[in-house]
Amino acid sequence: MDKKPRNWKEKLHEVIYEADTPAGKWFDIILLIAILASIVLVMLESVESFDNKHHDFLNISEWVITILFSIEYILRIVTIQKPSKYIFSFYGVIDFLSTIPKYLSLFFVGSHSLVALRALRLLRVFRVLKVSRYIGESNQLIKALNASKAKIGVFLYFVLIICIILGSVMYFIEGADNGFTSIPRSIYWSIVTLTTVGYGDIAPQTPLGQFIASITVIIGYAIIAIPTGIVSSEMTKKKIELNTQSCPNCSYDGHKDDAEFCYHCGTKLN
Amino acid sequence: MDKKPRNWKEKLHEVIYEADTPAGKWFDIILLIAILASIVLVMLESVESFDNKHHDFLNISEWVITILFSIEYILRIVTIQKPSKYIFSFYGVIDFLSTIPKYLSLFFVGSHSLVALRALRLLRVFRVLKVSRYIGESNQLIKALNASKAKIGVFLYFVLIICIILGSVMYFIEGADNGFTSIPRSIYWSIVTLTTVGYGDIAPQTPLGQFIASITVIIGYAIIAIPTGIVSSEMTKKKIELNTQSCPNCSYDGHKDDAEFCYHCGTKLN
Amino acid sequence: MDKKPRNWKEKLHEVIYEADTPAGKWFDIILLIAILASIVLVMLESVESFDNKHHDFLNISEWVITILFSIEYILRIVTIQKPSKYIFSFYGVIDFLSTIPKYLSLFFVGSHSLVALRALRLLRVFRVLKVSRYIGESNQLIKALNASKAKIGVFLYFVLIICIILGSVMYFIEGADNGFTSIPRSIYWSIVTLTTVGYGDIAPQTPLGQFIASITVIIGYAIIAIPTGIVSSEMTKKKIELNTQSCPNCSYDGHKDDAEFCYHCGTKLN
Amino acid sequence: MDKKPRNWKEKLHEVIYEADTPAGKWFDIILLIAILASIVLVMLESVESFDNKHHDFLNISEWVITILFSIEYILRIVTIQKPSKYIFSFYGVIDFLSTIPKYLSLFFVGSHSLVALRALRLLRVFRVLKVSRYIGESNQLIKALNASKAKIGVFLYFVLIICIILGSVMYFIEGADNGFTSIPRSIYWSIVTLTTVGYGDIAPQTPLGQFIASITVIIGYAIIAIPTGIVSSEMTKKKIELNTQSCPNCSYDGHKDDAEFCYHCGTKLN
Repeated sequence: MDKKPRNWKEKLHEVIYEADTPAGKWFDIILLIAILASIVLVMLESVESFDNKHHDFLNISEWVITILFSIEYILRIVTIQKPSKYIFSFYGVIDFLSTIPKYLSLFFVGSHSLVALRALRLLRVFRVLKVSRYIGESNQLIKALNASKAKIGVFLYFVLIICIILGSVMYFIEGADNGFTSIPRSIYWSIVTLTTVGYGDIAPQTPLGQFIASITVIIGYAIIAIPTGIVSSEMTKKKIELNTQSCPNCSYDGHKDDAEFCYHCGTKLN
Repeated sequence: MDKKPRNWKEKLHEVIYEADTPAGKWFDIILLIAILASIVLVMLESVESFDNKHHDFLNISEWVITILFSIEYILRIVTIQKPSKYIFSFYGVIDFLSTIPKYLSLFFVGSHSLVALRALRLLRVFRVLKVSRYIGESNQLIKALNASKAKIGVFLYFVLIICIILGSVMYFIEGADNGFTSIPRSIYWSIVTLTTVGYGDIAPQTPLGQFIASITVIIGYAIIAIPTGIVSSEMTKKKIELNTQSCPNCSYDGHKDDAEFCYHCGTKLN
Repeated sequence: MDKKPRNWKEKLHEVIYEADTPAGKWFDIILLIAILASIVLVMLESVESFDNKHHDFLNISEWVITILFSIEYILRIVTIQKPSKYIFSFYGVIDFLSTIPKYLSLFFVGSHSLVALRALRLLRVFRVLKVSRYIGESNQLIKALNASKAKIGVFLYFVLIICIILGSVMYFIEGADNGFTSIPRSIYWSIVTLTTVGYGDIAPQTPLGQFIASITVIIGYAIIAIPTGIVSSEMTKKKIELNTQSCPNCSYDGHKDDAEFCYHCGTKLN
Repeated sequence: MDKKPRNWKEKLHEVIYEADTPAGKWFDIILLIAILASIVLVMLESVESFDNKHHDFLNISEWVITILFSIEYILRIVTIQKPSKYIFSFYGVIDFLSTIPKYLSLFFVGSHSLVALRALRLLRVFRVLKVSRYIGESNQLIKALNASKAKIGVFLYFVLIICIILGSVMYFIEGADNGFTSIPRSIYWSIVTLTTVGYGDIAPQTPLGQFIASITVIIGYAIIAIPTGIVSSEMTKKKIELNTQSCPNCSYDGHKDDAEFCYHCGTKLN
């Protein structure tokens, strides 16, 4: 982005698609506020008592947001060199689907279609991710998660096997009379229990069932340490092994990232 | 604090505002006990059965505490050089607001105003922080939290997005009949579930809802590892780079424990 | 596996018992799908409404799976040199027990025996482990767990003692009227509480009981850190002492990354 | 323990008070089994239905255990040089108090005194600790806990302040109609919520209360990382700094615990 943009299209492109100019940052902040406002609108609409009182306010606000998003959508298409690249991208589809429902509501009237349109409008949540991609910290988090993805996957795989076994055992012990009406429902219980959520909608009633439940939660308590250990060690490793450069004179490595001289022999590092 | 305080004002200032003299430490301990006692008083007053039995005891104790706090407040103003600096500081405002309610109760009588005055009195909790600032360990904790603030913020931001998406999905699946009466309420459920609290006041009833709830809690189980990993690695990092020795030439510090030469200027460390 | 297998028995053995040939991998994948399908079948059968509607579909699918497993079982016996080694192994017994119930259902008809046979069929879950032993990541997890087994055991031992003490105390405070009908039931409550599951089926009703419950959960909150710390430090340790190089003289391994001489015999490492 | 014990008193002392001889280990194992059996007996007695059926069995078993413990108690007094040192030690008092209830039950008959005697008998749980002091791993755990005691204390102190503030706020928002009948009860709720236990016996009913509860649990979710981080970093530090011995030739330190030669210069370590 060293060369200056020449015409208005290139200027707008920089504002809309990038965040390294003041104007670009302001655009992102305004967009984020509009997205958050639009999400709050859909939520409030779903609260019946609120919707009955302030229906007109919600309707007008929704139109304002919709028109703002329409302008953004058109500008994004106009300022990009290959419009198709944006339109069929993940964010392009999200932008389109979350903007049209209000226009569609002019044609389709009825309580059932309204629910479907509201669901579409909630896709706006994904727009938030579009803005958040500029946050530096989030890249680090995603990197650490990616690095420990395989291990967490294997961990969840074993958790699921344990839950299936425990759920099945509880189904045979407690039975339908105590709320364990089927194996999938028992597995739902064992997942809710092992993860220490514990709704209490299904709870063991027989002494034997309570004994096994106790063992289950203690197992859950001990193995919750595993994913934490995985992510912790992944992050700690990153912090310590930050530099693999070796000294040209004594070939010692493990230098701090901001080191200019070898900590062992004092030779300048390049 | 090398030079001795000359008059009684300076002596009192040292006792009240500092903790490095025996008298100053005793003042802090007595103040802490008075604050804790005053908090317990407000709590007990809210227990109706206790208030009915021991109303006079509570009333008298409250007056004793109020007068003690009034004396402390006046002394703090008198002994400081610029009283306005204390009066309009955070702790000055807290001290004032949590002391006056008892005096106001002489003028305003009525059950409704009593509730408001009790709320004011509970601001005394913040006085505890004034005393706890002398605890060395708390500074370390706050430093570690500050260092990982940005990452935990980004983490909570993603947790909120996940909760909004999951809450919305559950609202469409379960619907108002099963307790998911609005999207905000569904998001409340998804937050309570993902954080493994699981009250059970709202719980999925349909098999599909239970299936999604199971996935939600397993996600919550896996991602609880992330903030832990952040704080752990932040704290572990501190422990390993412990060396606070500074280079005799360029005064850079933070050398590795086994460093023989400064990583910045190459001078030999002694 | 350098020498080529000569006859069909050796070829089949390689496909069934090993996973380092394309055919062997395909066999494992197909087997895994069959096992998962068979588990889903048993689950669906336990859902009464589903079983009533699709009984024939479930019955036929069950027969298909059973015949597939029978063929696998026979092939495993035929292709191995010492059949008894497989038949009386853990997986051999699991394979046998989880395959025969469908054949037995031809002779024993009755709701009670069906439940027992379903329980037998669920042993198929353990078959999944047979396939998962090829996942590299799982070996690492199991190794880390083994290394911290003793410490987690001691930790759970102390958790149990705390739970017995707390449960007993609550039994005397709350008593049978508030749901704490016996000491084992109170211990069940203290385990469910300390591990932060919190069903809510038993909850303290007296102020003193609620006070002790508050202390219990805060203790639980503080000590949940311990198993996590154990596993984290175990995993972090692994990462730092990563060197698998072995000494050319005494063949000791586990040298520090920056070691120049063997720590056991003093030979220079290359 | 190099010199051989001469008379039977010294021999018995070694068996009873120490665990480094085969007889001493066997004594500890038998004692542990007897203690566990005695705890199970008290538990089973509290289960009314079980007590009604097997009252005689429980009574006889209780007498056997009591006589065994009496013999152990007398032997401990006889074999020690200064009996007062044992009698008034923590374990001596526990041993005495948990043994006499059965004898007292001969004189005091009545349901109320039985409950008090049962409470006394449950002190046997502490006897388990007497045996467990020989477990090496437990010393490590206790050391790690001791090292991070101050930090965990400060952490719990802040958690309590947060709980008092949140509990008070919820008391004013939800009020007595929604179950938040007093400030202590609201604080009980906030502790149960922040620690992610979530019984559900008290749950917010108003939208504002649910909003604040959501923020509470998210705060709880983020700060659960802190004690974990404290313990993890404490344990990781221990593992890495295991040896502070320095090489006599090159004075390098940080050797592995089982190192026999310096990893830097190859000199034999003493």
